[in-house]
Amino acid sequence: MIKQKKKETSIKKVESTFKIHKKKRNLPIFSNLIIINMKISALQQARAAYQPKLPQALKGVVKISEGSATKSVADEEAISKMFPNTYGLPIVTFECGETAVDYPAINIGVILSGGQAPGGHNVIAGLFDGIKKLNANSRLYGFLMGPGGLVDHKYKELTADIIDEYRNTGGFDIIGSGRTKLEKEEQFEKGLEILKELNIKALVIIGGDDSNTNACVLAEYYAAKNTGIQVIGCPKTIDGDLKNAYIETSFGFDTACKVYSEVIGNIQRDCNSARKYWHFIKLMGRSASHIALECALQTQPNICIISEEVEKKALSLDDIVTSIAQAVADRAAAGNKFGTVLIPEGLIEFIPAMKSLIAELNDFLAHNGEEYAAIKPAEQREYIIKNLSADNAAVYASLPAGVARQLTLDRDPHGNVQVSLIETEKLLSEMVANKLTEWKKEGKFDSSFNAQHHFFGYEGRCAAPSNYDADYCYALGYTASQLIASGKTGYMASVRNTTAPAAEWTAGGIPITMMMNMERRHGEMKPVIQKALVDLEGAPFKAFAAQRETWAKETCYVYPGPIQYFGPTEVCDKTTATLALEQAK
Amino acid sequence: MIKQKKKETSIKKVESTFKIHKKKRNLPIFSNLIIINMKISALQQARAAYQPKLPQALKGVVKISEGSATKSVADEEAISKMFPNTYGLPIVTFECGETAVDYPAINIGVILSGGQAPGGHNVIAGLFDGIKKLNANSRLYGFLMGPGGLVDHKYKELTADIIDEYRNTGGFDIIGSGRTKLEKEEQFEKGLEILKELNIKALVIIGGDDSNTNACVLAEYYAAKNTGIQVIGCPKTIDGDLKNAYIETSFGFDTACKVYSEVIGNIQRDCNSARKYWHFIKLMGRSASHIALECALQTQPNICIISEEVEKKALSLDDIVTSIAQAVADRAAAGNKFGTVLIPEGLIEFIPAMKSLIAELNDFLAHNGEEYAAIKPAEQREYIIKNLSADNAAVYASLPAGVARQLTLDRDPHGNVQVSLIETEKLLSEMVANKLTEWKKEGKFDSSFNAQHHFFGYEGRCAAPSNYDADYCYALGYTASQLIASGKTGYMASVRNTTAPAAEWTAGGIPITMMMNMERRHGEMKPVIQKALVDLEGAPFKAFAAQRETWAKETCYVYPGPIQYFGPTEVCDKTTATLALEQAK
Repeated sequence: MIKQKKKETSIKKVESTFKIHKKKRNLPIFSNLIIINMKISALQQARAAYQPKLPQALKGVVKISEGSATKSVADEEAISKMFPNTYGLPIVTFECGETAVDYPAINIGVILSGGQAPGGHNVIAGLFDGIKKLNANSRLYGFLMGPGGLVDHKYKELTADIIDEYRNTGGFDIIGSGRTKLEKEEQFEKGLEILKELNIKALVIIGGDDSNTNACVLAEYYAAKNTGIQVIGCPKTIDGDLKNAYIETSFGFDTACKVYSEVIGNIQRDCNSARKYWHFIKLMGRSASHIALECALQTQPNICIISEEVEKKALSLDDIVTSIAQAVADRAAAGNKFGTVLIPEGLIEFIPAMKSLIAELNDFLAHNGEEYAAIKPAEQREYIIKNLSADNAAVYASLPAGVARQLTLDRDPHGNVQVSLIETEKLLSEMVANKLTEWKKEGKFDSSFNAQHHFFGYEGRCAAPSNYDADYCYALGYTASQLIASGKTGYMASVRNTTAPAAEWTAGGIPITMMMNMERRHGEMKPVIQKALVDLEGAPFKAFAAQRETWAKETCYVYPGPIQYFGPTEVCDKTTATLALEQAK
Repeated sequence: MIKQKKKETSIKKVESTFKIHKKKRNLPIFSNLIIINMKISALQQARAAYQPKLPQALKGVVKISEGSATKSVADEEAISKMFPNTYGLPIVTFECGETAVDYPAINIGVILSGGQAPGGHNVIAGLFDGIKKLNANSRLYGFLMGPGGLVDHKYKELTADIIDEYRNTGGFDIIGSGRTKLEKEEQFEKGLEILKELNIKALVIIGGDDSNTNACVLAEYYAAKNTGIQVIGCPKTIDGDLKNAYIETSFGFDTACKVYSEVIGNIQRDCNSARKYWHFIKLMGRSASHIALECALQTQPNICIISEEVEKKALSLDDIVTSIAQAVADRAAAGNKFGTVLIPEGLIEFIPAMKSLIAELNDFLAHNGEEYAAIKPAEQREYIIKNLSADNAAVYASLPAGVARQLTLDRDPHGNVQVSLIETEKLLSEMVANKLTEWKKEGKFDSSFNAQHHFFGYEGRCAAPSNYDADYCYALGYTASQLIASGKTGYMASVRNTTAPAAEWTAGGIPITMMMNMERRHGEMKPVIQKALVDLEGAPFKAFAAQRETWAKETCYVYPGPIQYFGPTEVCDKTTATLALEQAK
């Protein structure tokens, strides 16, 4: 698919196409140019040749098979009323066909929405190859910097040269991404203008749960207006929280977790060699702990906190701190003054007592912010404690000074605490240290405790996709092209059975309305795709729970190492432990 | 060399051998055990089979060739006087021999000293294979948790089963490491006891510049006492500062830099996709900026600070902040509100004004610590400013509150500022933000600036060694065995010409005294190995300097991706850019 000869020229073309992404460089002549003034790395060059695997059904002529009418997971009446044109559609599956059909050339638009996830470029490559196979004259347009590009009419045509340059690479830089939400009629109309102008017949939106919800609202709007424009979604998020009975996993989760597990493994090997530090490692994943859980299954740390469990058991901050401190004390007693703790980014918001404190603080400071700001720093803490309800005041008083300050100072434009700025990894280690100091005085601990802190997020979101994500994404994009060819709208591309070899994967489309229920968002009931939290009754959590006591006491670290793209299949083609456990019968 | 069948049993043996490293686990029976309760990862399993490459001269019968007498790099008189038995020895080189010699069985000891570096286990494996090839009855003992193990008589025999389990793995966990310095006669004598008890004829010390200096002192001591015990050093440090005309590089630098470059590349791809953040990335390397420079050559960030240049040009903190702020402003003016900055960990100590401030603070607080502690937090800053000399007071006053606090509060047991705790990446981004706010008022900047922070150190020190480090380390260990067989002491194992294919590498030994000069350490003149700082006239720095203006203005990011162990040679066997540039003619 990639023509090596065309490569050189294509690089230049891409550079001039996307703004200043890469400008022509006037470099001084230098003797060792072979390793400097690189354009792409040796690995990127070698990896470009990888041909992602496709499900058997998508390899040749494709036939569509339709199931029976579907319902939303809940709130059927409300949702069917809001989506008269896209509700109740059948699940569709693609099968090997026999008779090739002549498809007309069509123009397609594509948008990358929200946070980066490994494999986005391959979704676009799969989509491109799919529509070109149906008709070589079809064209693909990418809207720039996310959904905002559709509204602002910023786009570029994605030609074969450009696509080739981005195959199997990480990042969303082929067209950029953004967080503009497509929610308003005005936006839909602005989009319609450019879609008509470019004669675009279908729009593919690659995004998370919210972006796919909005894709469906847009599909409904364009259907209701008889525009003839289809909208198809693709499930993306490294957080892993967009999945359900029909979407096995969202793309990027596999690669991101493998990158995090690589560095966690390296830290654990260091930890086990130096035997003197406890490493507190925070991992991206604000609303669900799938990443922390997956990394725990891959690396077997001493401790991993799962936010969903904390919420279910209504644990307090002190409960969590005490249990970590106990593990530290137990390991120290056995001569092991080291360990690792994995912490999901969103933890704080899952601790009921902290949630309540934050809510009261937001409310209180919204009304008393000016008075508070006038108080001397040294007296601010007392002022807050005095003015909160007893329970929340007690929680606030228990917090280390730094975090207490963060809770009252770092506020977003709406006056709310910026929870994502709270360094939970430092908060926990500081409170564990305090607890151990208390225990020392009481004679319950007689060792030392030294901590190191890490936070991994941006390190994994743009890694070059693993074989799994490269294949999965390419298949998703290719599937989207088939959904378009079949005239579908309001569907999410779905590729399943992905723990089997790729040839056995199944591909099809799921009506997005089917995954929806009604939820309160910013005070209003809205139709949304249910977010998948860690299921405490699911196999991945149970596998973790069955072993965590052993992991805490002993040292069972596993060192996964970096993602391999060329090695033996048992190394290169492994799925996540989460998916393997979920799919295992 | 590795017998696959023996593997299963060997894993168990290893587990019971090294303390609680892995205890037998009583796990609940669980249905999906294939992916949980792992002992080693799929990659580690596959990588165990890698056979490190050896220089041609070491593959068969080895012959030694001796050069002429050597001198120390400086202070000849002082050093020759201190090392009467190990000074002036010739450089030796190994060549292909013809006649096999019968070597008696001997016992060897090995020590891992200081911070972890990828490849330590392969040095030990090479040493083991080397002595076993000379005589199958030779034995290897590892002293536990660093040089302290020698003094405290803590050791274990390293048998074939154990060695096999650790081939090509990261970490120093085979015997652990530690930072005890072997400096005192008492320690040498305690060591001698156990060496005699175990009938050990030679000791191999794997460490950085200080550890190798101490190895030589020990070699001299044992030679002077006619103990018959040889001491050989091996050059280790991820910091890359143990190198000279005879030691091309220290092991671990290649792998560690590749891991850091992988995550920097991922961050840069994210940065270039989201186009909204400046990422401030601090990198390990306190006394030299080799890591930052190498990572810059691999990833082409917008900015990379080199401590050695800062010192040479006597830049102030404000100079550095202004130059970063200027790059931010220039890029913003071109529509690019994003970028990356690499910062060497030790930067602060290379800024002359900060060095002077820290020295005065250390001195002042040593005498006025109690008075200072009694002052209200809100008034501490004023108190310090009032009491410092004018220049230092001005620098102190310019620092953000958080860093100012760190400089006066976080002190080590000797009362000194703990420079390593200063979050230089946050210090710089905060000061850049302040500078841009000023410029905004003056109409010189009209954009926004948002920063993210990262610090990478522990993430790379224990990665599984790259092919380069796996081969280099194995060759170093094998070379050490040949130096021992040749009766040498006070030598460092040296493997050179490593930018060529491994078969063409040369192996030999360099008298450690040859690398020494006299330096003041803790108020005393001592013989030490010269630390290699970044050479501002060297090819790596010049290659960087020639391009950095382009990198700052444009977006020239390269994404190296993770270390590959199985792919094409241009991906898997690449040396560092630093070494390639240094060796290029």
